[in-house]
Parts: sequence; C-alpha cells; structure tokens
Amino acid sequence: MKLYDFPGAPNPRRVRMFLAEKDVSVELVNVDLAGGEHRSAEFLKKNPSAKIPVLELDDGTCIAESVAICRYIEAEHPLPNLFGATAVELGLVEMGNRHIELELLSQIGISWVNGPIVARMAAGRFSQIPEAKVQSDERVRSYYARLNKELEATQYVAASRFSIADITALIAIDFASAMVDLKPEPELAALWRWHKLVSSRPSAQA
Amino acid sequence: MKLYDFPGAPNPRRVRMFLAEKDVSVELVNVDLAGGEHRSAEFLKKNPSAKIPVLELDDGTCIAESVAICRYIEAEHPLPNLFGATAVELGLVEMGNRHIELELLSQIGISWVNGPIVARMAAGRFSQIPEAKVQSDERVRSYYARLNKELEATQYVAASRFSIADITALIAIDFASAMVDLKPEPELAALWRWHKLVSSRPSAQA
Repeated sequence: MKLYDFPGAPNPRRVRMFLAEKDVSVELVNVDLAGGEHRSAEFLKKNPSAKIPVLELDDGTCIAESVAICRYIEAEHPLPNLFGATAVELGLVEMGNRHIELELLSQIGISWVNGPIVARMAAGRFSQIPEAKVQSDERVRSYYARLNKELEATQYVAASRFSIADITALIAIDFASAMVDLKPEPELAALWRWHKLVSSRPSAQA
Repeated sequence: MKLYDFPGAPNPRRVRMFLAEKDVSVELVNVDLAGGEHRSAEFLKKNPSAKIPVLELDDGTCIAESVAICRYIEAEHPLPNLFGATAVELGLVEMGNRHIELELLSQIGISWVNGPIVARMAAGRFSQIPEAKVQSDERVRSYYARLNKELEATQYVAASRFSIADITALIAIDFASAMVDLKPEPELAALWRWHKLVSSRPSAQA
C-alpha cells in the first residue's frame, strides 16, 4: 500500500496518525503540490478531486478522502477501535468527527485559502475573498469557545473516549495554529488540557 | 425514536430516504425553523450546532448529523447494506459520499446561504457575501460536469451499486434545482439517466 502524502498538510497527518494508532505501516509517496503534480492527468486518475491523501492498494484501487482511508484501515485492522464499537458509539463518533470537520476544519480551510500564504503560492490561479476569511476566522474562534465548554465536561471530543474525532480536532487546531494565525486563546483551559493529553500520544508525532 | 425534521430541507430528506430504504419507521417532529426553535436552549441541548436533523433515542441520547444518524441505523439494521459490505466498499462508498458532500452539497449550501431566499428569511441576522455565491455557483456547475462524466462509466455514484452516496447526490441536486436555481443542464445525459433511476425508488418519496 502507498499513501500519497505531503508533509505539513493537515489531512495526510490525520491519516498518518490514524495508521500509527493502528500500528500499520505504508509506503509514503510525496506529491509535489508546489509543482502542481496533484493536477496532472496521472494523479487525477487516482483522485479526480486533485487532493491528497490518497491510499493506493496493491491491486491499484485508489481510495481518496482521509476519513474514507481511515474507514478502510479500521475494517482491515479493527483494533484499537477508533470509530466506535456499538451502534450508539458509531453514531456519536461520526457526529463528533463531523462537527469538527464541518464546523471547525472547513472554516480553517476557508481562512487558509483566503489568507496570505495561499495568496503568495497560488497568485493569479483563483480569486481570494477577504470578506470570507473575516467570517470564517470569527466562526473558528466561536467554535474554539464551544469546544472548550464541551471539554470542561468530558475528557475527549466524542463518546467519552479517544477516537478519530480527537485526531481530526488535533490536526485542525495544530494546522490553524502553525499556518493560519488561528491559535486558540490561552485562556481556553479545557481545550489546552485536552490538547496536551492527545499530543502526548506517540501517534501525534506521525 | 424521534427524528427532528423540517419538510423541504435537504438533510432531513436524506435521513428519511435512508430510513425508507431500511423500512424503519420513526416519529417525525417538525422543528419551527422560521420561529428559531432550533436556536432555543432546549434544542441546543439536543444539538449544540443548532441544526436538524437530530435523532433522539428512547433513552434520550441525541445523535445529530445526517450521516451519523444513518450510521447508527445501519449498525442496528444492517440490511440492505448502504455503506459498503467489505473493507474496500466501505472505503469507496465513504469516498463517493464525501466527494458529493464536500465538493457539491457544501457548495450548494454556500450558494443557498448567500442567495435571495435566505436574504429575505434571515435579513440582518448575518451578512451575505455575493462574491462567494458566484464562486460556489461555478463550482457546482463544474461538479455537475464531473459527475456526468463519472456516470457515463458507472451506473451509481460509488462502488458500482446503490449506496448512501446516491441518496446524498439526489437530495443535493433536487434541493439545488428547486431552491437555489442550480438545476443541472439538460445536456448532462448520464447525470439525468442516473437521476431518473434513483428517483424511481419508492424511498425517494420520503
């Protein structure tokens, strides 16, 4: 198996951390995003969305989308369980993971594509909307406050135990802190308590 | 079980169609979105994201997010399988469903919240970004072309068989056609062939 990867990007890190939790090794192949390799005809056959990560199986089947890759891995390597073990847990972990993805990570993404680093990298390739970044920055800050409040009552993001929802939240917050100038405020104590706990797992180095 | 619902909204329809495929009945409870019931303290206890649908179990546990509700239902009622039966299918269905959600449905959502109907409904409650709608309209049109090309080679959206990815695509396209002025162009023959096929399922009436 090969994982098409890029160091520093949040979604491939999500998959690498998930694989590390499962103790599964794959060959990592760096895709030259700066050189536009993800938009080449050859790569579009692997993923028409022109995005990494992509997992290529030994028979050539390609699975794109971080969570789709993780679901495949979970089915092949069920333990430790990271998506939920009962029907209720499966629902609650999916809910927690989606809340983070759709209301935090996606807003961080809007701030990123409309921010200064992408302005330099993708100059002229698409038009940025500064007003959209103002709105998404505000939504990210507001989600941090919500997450902090939730983490005052529970140890982990979803279903009261470590799951893929914690991995998604960690890679989102670390990317926002390092690359988008959206580091959570220091006074969000419960969020930082959780961040320390999850960052201390060996998989967080993946 | 109760499903907090709203007629005409795309995501509750996704869950109703999934439940109909499984032949599972739930009590439907209409939430008064126009009156702001989804932002009431009582509703926020069920879903802090202030969104429908929410499935409330008999013990009071609440599962929000359409796909999380569907995963719970799939675990409780495995047949007919709608998320994939093997590891590879689980990965491919998740990929197909996510491509539709993240690259089509979410862009339809951006066009909707920045469009004329929401301008009237939510006047003054948040600021619209007309430029964002121009960008998302263009992305929706471009995704329709991609989907049409994919459906020239395959009968269904994901993993060569009916799955939740078809339900997501149907509710997205029907909402875009009826409420956002983003009906797919008539010349997209493969897309319309698929649309007719999936719309003819009894569950599409749910």
